[in-house]
Amino acid sequence: MTRLDRAEALRLLGSVSLGRIVFTERALPAVRPVNHVMDGGDIIVRLHDGASLAAIVAPTNASGVVVAYEADVIDPVSHLGWSVVVTGYARRVTDEGLLARYAEQLIPWAACPPMNGALRIRPDLVTGARLTV
Amino acid sequence: MTRLDRAEALRLLGSVSLGRIVFTERALPAVRPVNHVMDGGDIIVRLHDGASLAAIVAPTNASGVVVAYEADVIDPVSHLGWSVVVTGYARRVTDEGLLARYAEQLIPWAACPPMNGALRIRPDLVTGARLTV
Repeated sequence: MTRLDRAEALRLLGSVSLGRIVFTERALPAVRPVNHVMDGGDIIVRLHDGASLAAIVAPTNASGVVVAYEADVIDPVSHLGWSVVVTGYARRVTDEGLLARYAEQLIPWAACPPMNGALRIRPDLVTGARLTV
Repeated sequence: MTRLDRAEALRLLGSVSLGRIVFTERALPAVRPVNHVMDGGDIIVRLHDGASLAAIVAPTNASGVVVAYEADVIDPVSHLGWSVVVTGYARRVTDEGLLARYAEQLIPWAACPPMNGALRIRPDLVTGARLTV
Protein backbone atom coordinates (compact mmCIF):
# COMPACT_ATOMS: atom_id res chain seq x y z
CA MET A 1 0.00 0.00 0.00
CA THR A 2 1.43 3.38 -1.05
CA ARG A 3 0.20 6.60 0.52
CA LEU A 4 -0.80 9.21 -2.05
CA ASP A 5 0.10 12.85 -1.73
CA ARG A 6 -2.66 15.44 -1.78
CA ALA A 7 -2.22 16.45 -5.41
CA GLU A 8 -2.26 12.87 -6.69
CA ALA A 9 -5.24 11.97 -4.49
CA LEU A 10 -7.28 14.91 -5.82
CA ARG A 11 -6.24 14.10 -9.39
CA LEU A 12 -7.55 10.55 -8.98
CA LEU A 13 -10.77 11.85 -7.41
CA GLY A 14 -11.25 14.04 -10.49
CA SER A 15 -10.73 11.04 -12.78
CA VAL A 16 -14.03 9.46 -11.67
CA SER A 17 -17.57 10.83 -11.42
CA LEU A 18 -18.95 8.72 -8.59
CA GLY A 19 -18.25 8.80 -4.86
CA ARG A 20 -19.95 8.49 -1.50
CA ILE A 21 -20.74 11.41 0.79
CA VAL A 22 -20.58 10.63 4.50
CA PHE A 23 -22.34 12.74 7.08
CA THR A 24 -24.13 12.63 10.39
CA GLU A 25 -27.92 12.37 10.38
CA ARG A 26 -29.77 12.47 13.69
CA ALA A 27 -26.50 11.51 15.45
CA LEU A 28 -26.07 8.43 13.22
CA PRO A 29 -23.45 7.85 10.54
CA ALA A 30 -25.00 8.17 7.08
CA VAL A 31 -23.68 7.60 3.57
CA ARG A 32 -25.05 8.14 0.05
CA PRO A 33 -23.56 7.46 -3.36
CA VAL A 34 -23.52 10.64 -5.46
CA ASN A 35 -21.79 11.94 -8.53
CA HIS A 36 -19.34 14.78 -8.44
CA VAL A 37 -17.26 17.20 -10.45
CA MET A 38 -14.12 19.02 -9.32
CA ASP A 39 -13.97 22.80 -9.46
CA GLY A 40 -10.79 24.60 -8.50
CA GLY A 41 -9.78 21.87 -6.08
CA ASP A 42 -13.25 21.67 -4.47
CA ILE A 43 -15.67 18.77 -4.84
CA ILE A 44 -19.15 19.66 -6.11
CA VAL A 45 -22.05 17.26 -5.55
CA ARG A 46 -25.68 17.66 -6.51
CA LEU A 47 -28.69 17.84 -4.21
CA HIS A 48 -32.36 17.32 -4.94
CA ASP A 49 -35.59 17.99 -3.09
CA GLY A 50 -36.27 15.65 -0.26
CA ALA A 51 -32.64 14.63 0.17
CA SER A 52 -31.67 14.47 3.83
CA LEU A 53 -28.43 16.23 2.96
CA ALA A 54 -30.37 19.21 1.67
CA ALA A 55 -32.01 19.56 5.07
CA ILE A 56 -28.76 19.06 6.96
CA VAL A 57 -26.79 21.64 4.97
CA ALA A 58 -29.28 24.50 4.86
CA PRO A 59 -28.65 27.32 2.37
CA THR A 60 -28.48 29.73 5.31
CA ASN A 61 -25.71 27.73 7.02
CA ALA A 62 -22.69 29.74 5.87
CA SER A 63 -20.24 27.95 8.13
CA GLY A 64 -21.12 24.58 6.63
CA VAL A 65 -21.19 21.02 7.91
CA VAL A 66 -18.24 18.63 8.14
CA VAL A 67 -18.56 15.70 5.77
CA ALA A 68 -16.28 13.02 4.38
CA TYR A 69 -16.18 12.11 0.71
CA GLU A 70 -14.82 8.82 -0.55
CA ALA A 71 -14.11 7.49 -4.01
CA ASP A 72 -12.27 4.38 -5.05
CA VAL A 73 -11.46 2.18 -8.01
CA ILE A 74 -10.66 -1.25 -6.61
CA ASP A 75 -10.59 -4.48 -8.58
CA PRO A 76 -12.93 -6.88 -6.76
CA VAL A 77 -10.71 -9.87 -7.53
CA SER A 78 -7.12 -8.61 -7.26
CA HIS A 79 -7.96 -5.84 -4.75
CA LEU A 80 -5.59 -3.56 -6.63
CA GLY A 81 -6.56 0.05 -7.17
CA TRP A 82 -6.85 3.21 -5.16
CA SER A 83 -8.99 4.88 -2.54
CA VAL A 84 -9.23 8.55 -1.59
CA VAL A 85 -10.98 10.08 1.42
CA VAL A 86 -11.49 13.82 1.77
CA THR A 87 -12.76 15.49 4.94
CA GLY A 88 -13.92 19.08 4.93
CA TYR A 89 -16.74 21.57 5.24
CA ALA A 90 -19.67 21.23 2.88
CA ARG A 91 -21.56 24.42 2.04
CA ARG A 92 -24.46 25.16 -0.28
CA VAL A 93 -23.63 26.66 -3.66
CA THR A 94 -25.73 29.82 -3.72
CA ASP A 95 -24.46 31.51 -6.91
CA GLU A 96 -27.13 30.98 -9.59
CA GLY A 97 -24.62 31.04 -12.44
CA LEU A 98 -22.49 28.37 -10.81
CA LEU A 99 -25.56 26.27 -10.02
CA ALA A 100 -26.59 26.36 -13.68
CA ARG A 101 -23.09 25.31 -14.76
CA TYR A 102 -22.90 22.47 -12.24
CA ALA A 103 -26.37 21.26 -13.23
CA GLU A 104 -25.01 20.78 -16.76
CA GLN A 105 -21.82 19.07 -15.61
CA LEU A 106 -23.40 16.74 -13.06
CA ILE A 107 -25.09 13.98 -15.01
CA PRO A 108 -28.45 13.31 -13.35
CA TRP A 109 -29.13 9.96 -11.76
CA ALA A 110 -31.57 7.68 -13.47
CA ALA A 111 -35.15 8.49 -12.46
CA CYS A 112 -34.05 10.89 -9.72
CA PRO A 113 -35.74 14.19 -8.99
CA PRO A 114 -34.14 17.07 -10.87
CA MET A 115 -31.16 18.75 -9.21
CA ASN A 116 -32.11 21.90 -7.40
CA GLY A 117 -29.06 22.51 -5.33
CA ALA A 118 -25.40 21.69 -4.99
CA LEU A 119 -22.82 21.34 -2.25
CA ARG A 120 -19.23 22.50 -2.39
CA ILE A 121 -16.84 20.43 -0.27
CA ARG A 122 -13.57 22.13 0.53
CA PRO A 123 -10.95 19.39 1.07
CA ASP A 124 -9.27 20.18 4.38
CA LEU A 125 -7.87 16.72 4.97
CA VAL A 126 -7.01 14.49 2.02
CA THR A 127 -5.83 10.93 2.45
CA GLY A 128 -5.35 8.35 -0.23
CA ALA A 129 -3.72 5.03 -0.86
CA ARG A 130 -2.78 3.05 -3.89
CA LEU A 131 -3.16 -0.67 -3.32
CA THR A 132 -0.23 -2.39 -4.95
CA VAL A 133 1.14 -5.93 -4.95
CA MET B 1 -35.37 4.48 -8.83
CA THR B 2 -36.89 1.42 -7.17
CA ARG B 3 -36.66 0.87 -3.42
CA LEU B 4 -35.35 -2.56 -2.50
CA ASP B 5 -36.84 -4.63 0.29
CA ARG B 6 -34.57 -5.81 3.09
CA ALA B 7 -34.09 -9.35 1.76
CA GLU B 8 -33.18 -8.19 -1.74
CA ALA B 9 -30.84 -5.48 -0.39
CA LEU B 10 -28.96 -8.00 1.79
CA ARG B 11 -28.80 -10.46 -1.10
CA LEU B 12 -27.17 -7.82 -3.31
CA LEU B 13 -24.75 -6.90 -0.51
CA GLY B 14 -23.73 -10.53 -0.33
CA SER B 15 -23.14 -10.63 -4.09
CA VAL B 16 -20.10 -8.32 -3.78
CA SER B 17 -17.03 -8.45 -1.54
CA LEU B 18 -16.22 -4.75 -1.25
CA GLY B 19 -17.96 -1.98 0.65
CA ARG B 20 -17.28 1.10 2.75
CA ILE B 21 -17.63 1.25 6.50
CA VAL B 22 -18.73 4.61 7.89
CA PHE B 23 -18.10 5.62 11.48
CA THR B 24 -17.34 8.56 13.72
CA GLU B 25 -13.71 9.24 14.59
CA ARG B 26 -12.95 12.04 17.03
CA ALA B 27 -16.37 13.55 16.30
CA LEU B 28 -15.70 13.58 12.53
CA PRO B 29 -17.34 11.44 9.84
CA ALA B 30 -14.92 8.76 8.64
CA VAL B 31 -15.08 6.16 5.89
CA ARG B 32 -12.84 3.27 4.78
CA PRO B 33 -13.18 0.77 1.95
CA VAL B 34 -13.07 -2.77 3.28
CA ASN B 35 -14.02 -6.23 2.13
CA HIS B 36 -16.78 -8.24 3.70
CA VAL B 37 -18.53 -11.57 3.90
CA MET B 38 -22.07 -12.23 5.06
CA ASP B 39 -22.74 -14.66 7.90
CA GLY B 40 -26.28 -15.43 8.95
CA GLY B 41 -27.53 -12.02 7.84
CA ASP B 42 -24.68 -10.14 9.54
CA ILE B 43 -21.86 -8.34 7.76
CA ILE B 44 -18.32 -9.36 8.74
CA VAL B 45 -15.39 -7.05 7.99
CA ARG B 46 -11.74 -7.50 8.83
CA LEU B 47 -9.57 -5.39 11.11
CA HIS B 48 -5.82 -5.12 11.34
CA ASP B 49 -3.37 -3.64 13.80
CA GLY B 50 -3.21 0.11 13.74
CA ALA B 51 -6.61 0.54 12.14
CA SER B 52 -8.56 3.38 13.74
CA LEU B 53 -11.65 1.17 13.71
CA ALA B 54 -9.87 -1.37 15.91
CA ALA B 55 -9.36 1.34 18.51
CA ILE B 56 -12.92 2.65 18.21
CA VAL B 57 -14.58 -0.73 18.58
CA ALA B 58 -12.60 -2.19 21.49
CA PRO B 59 -12.91 -5.94 22.16
CA THR B 60 -14.24 -5.10 25.62
CA ASN B 61 -17.07 -2.96 24.18
CA ALA B 62 -19.88 -5.51 24.27
CA SER B 63 -22.60 -2.99 23.40
CA GLY B 64 -20.83 -2.02 20.17
CA VAL B 65 -20.64 1.13 18.10
CA VAL B 66 -23.14 2.32 15.49
CA VAL B 67 -21.74 2.27 11.97
CA ALA B 68 -23.10 2.45 8.46
CA TYR B 69 -22.01 0.11 5.70
CA GLU B 70 -22.46 0.90 2.04
CA ALA B 71 -21.95 -1.13 -1.11
CA ASP B 72 -22.94 -0.35 -4.66
CA VAL B 73 -22.52 -1.46 -8.22
CA ILE B 74 -23.19 1.56 -10.39
CA ASP B 75 -22.22 1.96 -14.02
CA PRO B 76 -20.17 5.18 -14.24
CA VAL B 77 -21.61 6.04 -17.65
CA SER B 78 -25.27 4.99 -17.54
CA HIS B 79 -25.59 5.40 -13.75
CA LEU B 80 -27.64 2.23 -13.67
CA GLY B 81 -27.11 -0.24 -10.86
CA TRP B 82 -27.87 -0.52 -7.18
CA SER B 83 -26.83 0.84 -3.83
CA VAL B 84 -27.40 -0.57 -0.35
CA VAL B 85 -26.84 1.13 3.01
CA VAL B 86 -27.00 -0.76 6.28
CA THR B 87 -26.95 0.89 9.70
CA GLY B 88 -26.36 -1.09 12.86
CA TYR B 89 -24.16 -1.94 15.79
CA ALA B 90 -20.65 -3.18 15.07
CA ARG B 91 -19.08 -5.47 17.65
CA ARG B 92 -15.79 -7.33 17.78
CA VAL B 93 -15.82 -11.00 16.88
CA THR B 94 -14.27 -12.66 19.92
CA ASP B 95 -14.81 -16.35 19.15
CA GLU B 96 -11.43 -17.74 18.03
CA GLY B 97 -12.99 -20.38 15.80
CA LEU B 98 -15.10 -17.81 13.97
CA LEU B 99 -12.10 -15.47 13.64
CA ALA B 100 -10.09 -18.24 12.00
CA ARG B 101 -12.93 -18.97 9.58
CA TYR B 102 -13.43 -15.32 8.66
CA ALA B 103 -9.67 -14.87 8.18
CA GLU B 104 -9.88 -17.55 5.48
CA GLN B 105 -12.97 -16.08 3.85
CA LEU B 106 -11.87 -12.44 3.86
CA ILE B 107 -9.32 -12.07 1.11
CA PRO B 108 -6.49 -9.88 2.46
CA TRP B 109 -5.82 -6.50 0.90
CA ALA B 110 -2.67 -6.11 -1.12
CA ALA B 111 0.31 -5.31 1.11
CA CYS B 112 -1.88 -4.74 4.15
CA PRO B 113 -0.99 -5.91 7.65
CA PRO B 114 -2.39 -9.35 8.44
CA MET B 115 -5.93 -9.49 9.79
CA ASN B 116 -6.04 -9.84 13.54
CA GLY B 117 -9.61 -9.01 14.26
CA ALA B 118 -13.04 -8.78 12.75
CA LEU B 119 -16.23 -6.81 13.24
CA ARG B 120 -19.75 -8.14 13.04
CA ILE B 121 -22.31 -5.57 11.90
CA ARG B 122 -25.91 -6.45 12.73
CA PRO B 123 -28.14 -4.76 10.13
CA ASP B 124 -30.79 -2.88 12.09
CA LEU B 125 -31.77 -0.53 9.28
CA VAL B 126 -31.41 -1.63 5.66
CA THR B 127 -32.13 0.69 2.75
CA GLY B 128 -31.44 0.05 -0.88
CA ALA B 129 -32.32 1.31 -4.29
CA ARG B 130 -32.06 -0.02 -7.78
CA LEU B 131 -31.32 2.72 -10.27
CA THR B 132 -33.38 2.06 -13.36
CA VAL B 133 -34.17 3.95 -16.53
